[in-house]
Amino acid sequence: MFSILRINAATGEIKREQENSKEYLLGGRTLSSRLISREIPADCDALGKKNKLFLCNGALSGTTVSSCNRLSIGSKSPLTGGAKESNAGGIVGTRMASHGLRAIVIEDAPAGDAPWQIIVIGKDKCELVDGSFLVGKGVYEKSDLLCEKFGKKAGCMTIGPAGEKLLLATGIACSDPHGVCSRYAGRGGLGAVMGSKRIIALVLLNDGEVKPDFADKEMFKAGSKKIVQLLRENPVSSLFTKYGTAAMVDICQSLNVLPTRNFTRGTMEGAEKINAQTMYDIIKERGGEGLTQHACMQPCAIQCSNVYPRKDGSLLCSPIEYETMALMGSNLCVDSLDVIGTMNRIANDAGVDTLDCGAAIGVAMEAGLAEFGDGDAAIQMMEEIRSLTPLGRILASGVKIAAKVLGVRHAPHVLGQALPAYEPRGSKGMAMTYLSSPMGADHTFGFTLRDEDVPTDKEGKVALSKKFQVIGSRMDAMGMCNFVRYSVRDDMTPLLDLMKALYGVSISAEEFDDFVKETLKFEHQFNIDAGITDKDHRFSETFYEEKQPETGEIVDITDEEVNQAMSW
Amino acid sequence: MFSILRINAATGEIKREQENSKEYLLGGRTLSSRLISREIPADCDALGKKNKLFLCNGALSGTTVSSCNRLSIGSKSPLTGGAKESNAGGIVGTRMASHGLRAIVIEDAPAGDAPWQIIVIGKDKCELVDGSFLVGKGVYEKSDLLCEKFGKKAGCMTIGPAGEKLLLATGIACSDPHGVCSRYAGRGGLGAVMGSKRIIALVLLNDGEVKPDFADKEMFKAGSKKIVQLLRENPVSSLFTKYGTAAMVDICQSLNVLPTRNFTRGTMEGAEKINAQTMYDIIKERGGEGLTQHACMQPCAIQCSNVYPRKDGSLLCSPIEYETMALMGSNLCVDSLDVIGTMNRIANDAGVDTLDCGAAIGVAMEAGLAEFGDGDAAIQMMEEIRSLTPLGRILASGVKIAAKVLGVRHAPHVLGQALPAYEPRGSKGMAMTYLSSPMGADHTFGFTLRDEDVPTDKEGKVALSKKFQVIGSRMDAMGMCNFVRYSVRDDMTPLLDLMKALYGVSISAEEFDDFVKETLKFEHQFNIDAGITDKDHRFSETFYEEKQPETGEIVDITDEEVNQAMSW
Repeated sequence: MFSILRINAATGEIKREQENSKEYLLGGRTLSSRLISREIPADCDALGKKNKLFLCNGALSGTTVSSCNRLSIGSKSPLTGGAKESNAGGIVGTRMASHGLRAIVIEDAPAGDAPWQIIVIGKDKCELVDGSFLVGKGVYEKSDLLCEKFGKKAGCMTIGPAGEKLLLATGIACSDPHGVCSRYAGRGGLGAVMGSKRIIALVLLNDGEVKPDFADKEMFKAGSKKIVQLLRENPVSSLFTKYGTAAMVDICQSLNVLPTRNFTRGTMEGAEKINAQTMYDIIKERGGEGLTQHACMQPCAIQCSNVYPRKDGSLLCSPIEYETMALMGSNLCVDSLDVIGTMNRIANDAGVDTLDCGAAIGVAMEAGLAEFGDGDAAIQMMEEIRSLTPLGRILASGVKIAAKVLGVRHAPHVLGQALPAYEPRGSKGMAMTYLSSPMGADHTFGFTLRDEDVPTDKEGKVALSKKFQVIGSRMDAMGMCNFVRYSVRDDMTPLLDLMKALYGVSISAEEFDDFVKETLKFEHQFNIDAGITDKDHRFSETFYEEKQPETGEIVDITDEEVNQAMSW
Repeated sequence: MFSILRINAATGEIKREQENSKEYLLGGRTLSSRLISREIPADCDALGKKNKLFLCNGALSGTTVSSCNRLSIGSKSPLTGGAKESNAGGIVGTRMASHGLRAIVIEDAPAGDAPWQIIVIGKDKCELVDGSFLVGKGVYEKSDLLCEKFGKKAGCMTIGPAGEKLLLATGIACSDPHGVCSRYAGRGGLGAVMGSKRIIALVLLNDGEVKPDFADKEMFKAGSKKIVQLLRENPVSSLFTKYGTAAMVDICQSLNVLPTRNFTRGTMEGAEKINAQTMYDIIKERGGEGLTQHACMQPCAIQCSNVYPRKDGSLLCSPIEYETMALMGSNLCVDSLDVIGTMNRIANDAGVDTLDCGAAIGVAMEAGLAEFGDGDAAIQMMEEIRSLTPLGRILASGVKIAAKVLGVRHAPHVLGQALPAYEPRGSKGMAMTYLSSPMGADHTFGFTLRDEDVPTDKEGKVALSKKFQVIGSRMDAMGMCNFVRYSVRDDMTPLLDLMKALYGVSISAEEFDDFVKETLKFEHQFNIDAGITDKDHRFSETFYEEKQPETGEIVDITDEEVNQAMSW
């Protein structure tokens, strides 16, 4: 049996329910997207009382399996207007497991000026307590205050000042293993949804006593070791172990897909100044708190995260991911990791998504508000976001809105969500994935880039995107880290065996993929019911008209092809 | 035969075409909406090269018939994403007639940084000339410069600084009879469309020699007199002659539909300080340039416009309309006509719609950026629009976007266009009209308020709205002022006879209404093709959930009823 905690943010009512179906067994996006589909009226205001926020851990959460503790957060997105799943590392999923929880549901919403509250979940309690002491503070300070009050080992979620103000490019920050809320479910405006419910934090105390009840403990131990072995042997995940996702800078530069100058180009002069080797060398040279390898959750055999130090060795930001290096770096023609790290830190503190805000700053630069390459101006814009000035609000409202307000047509987004760090004219596989995702532009949704023979050719990319939509979604579907997929893409047995050893329930590879595909169907149907049409599954018109300088390519993908890539 | 001038804003190519069908005979919205439907790909970027701008005068343009010289401007709206017709008084329609033109089409678009151009149309020429001397200037200064260069009697259209920056709540300003571009096609962001084509002004020189060629001149003269007589006899239009549209303040206050405090209420304490009598008394008392009666075009027997003077008698703003008095007055709890007039003047100078910007300021006040009732703060916000500060850009981006950026859920709009000055919970007829208009919320589209027995009751309002959709659209359909409708709502013969006397072509009342209804069909179909769905034809969720204090009413209209009101 799996436990679900329902908390009504308006009335304070709290209910605990029990479920026993396979969707609860799998958890993750399998569960969160089904709950969205079942419980949220698709056409509601995402910031109104009919929306809900679903927090789901995954099938293997709370066990010793590597990289299994992602937290899946589901809701209707105020940014895209559709179904949203955004997942984060950190320890919240683990703490939920230790309280015997598969899902937490935050329902309803009080008046917009109601007092802020904190949901506190412990061994024998769940209560709403006063959250006013957190209001208006940055996420780093909120983290400190939460640790002080609830202990460093509590699993916390909070939002930044931008989320309190219901801005659309805001995320939810989750505790990392050191008690810092730095692990973001960043995409889709979930911070604003949490803010709209006047919930400023959720805390899972470190007093949970529920332990996994293995059907076959020996089998589980062996299976768990097998995963570590697979991850270590895999060339992609082992590369990430050394360099983190920063390894993508050189790869993307060489493939003409490194977003540059507000996504008008796919290569950046001086890209080597912000690549993985440079980052590695800086971290090693500065020492101090810097780490080239770091785990966002326990346990993890990949440890792709990092800790980027200031010149004096003190922590500037953890982690700096490739996506941020591109959106806040190359996309702005900024070639300094210190600038990118500073921007990333401010974004984490303000509670905003680094991708959406980086893209919005790119648009602001195109509008002439600053010169491309001006790192000080870029940092200043992030400070405006943190201070919630009018310009800051524009930049934290998502790149689609920012572009309209700033009078820029070349707005890099699909469904209002900023394009991740792969220039779509250079990779038709990634373009297909962006266009056909129910979540708005999302690279994790179907990462084709490593498997495209001719990235600029759209031939065969419907099928390729769909293949990787399944491979990527399998990980979300059970709450695994996306980077595990490289090790099991041809054979899911190692993970399916672990579920069998834990629960004594057999799920075949076919049955599992049926869950994955059915999840996609639910998400797409939700979006249709919400009023999203084919016309929304497009890039800005400029991507179809203006050639990428390096390749001479435009986006040549048709609505029909996108529809094929969305049909399951 | 009717002449059409096509101007390619990118290549400079100019073509003159001839047409002879009844849609060209009728002109106005009959023509502009058909051209939209036929020539604009519905799914294009409204600020891209595929969009077009259609300027059409009406069937009786250039004649001596009262109130027949409205200019219909059609395009895809960047504000609503759908078909847009916005019409304006002034002399542009008349000048087009004197050059023998029924329509001017501005096509294509150069690069976003191409030089600004002016289209100059004269007796023997049409050319694109340098417009750089106008760039960045306010509309009043632009008017002066255009008069200086092209003469005070030229018919000019221009945009303000906000239109140059492609902001979405911008309009196109047309010359009034005194050479001031103060007659706005204000709604739907047409200023941004003109700006996207890098056309900063269009000038029709006063050297046209084309005169009407009457089929039956005597019949026409008699018919023309008949219209004046009907207008003078009609109680509504004769009330407007004395008080202008300001007469609506008291009516709306008494019906609980005067938008107040960001559309949360339908009555304003102190409404009498901004009503028609107060305005009349101030204008009379101050004298100087002030006029309680004034014609926006020649000839006009209604003369509902006014000239509102400063304390020293100099012109502050002409005209101040009821819609502005409500959106920039009661909606902000501002009870000073001087403040409203000042805001209106700044709006005219910046080139923005007073309704959309007034509504956006209401939202900004709800967000806490200023207190309701603070006139100085409201003027300051208008100054920010004129100066194009970040806050100014937010406020000039339409109330839907402004509300998202400022974190306010109660956003008074349909399809992104701000609600006009009738609080929809207090009048279910007006609510039905707002919801079912293809143009976004629009009061002229089907003005039910005067004919609702019980305004708060939705019973029968589908039929009532549809009845007035036809009555209102008849006027647009042939380029007549909307206020003529009161005189011909039960019998269109006087206007149909005039067309017969001018062209020798009989159009029956049935045939005419078929044109009107077919126009509506074209507009709705365009919107569907553009990706607009049922879900967009709604108010913000708060209007369905929160009761209007005066009446206890919510909006209780269903999607099905809206669909009925949109079916022709």
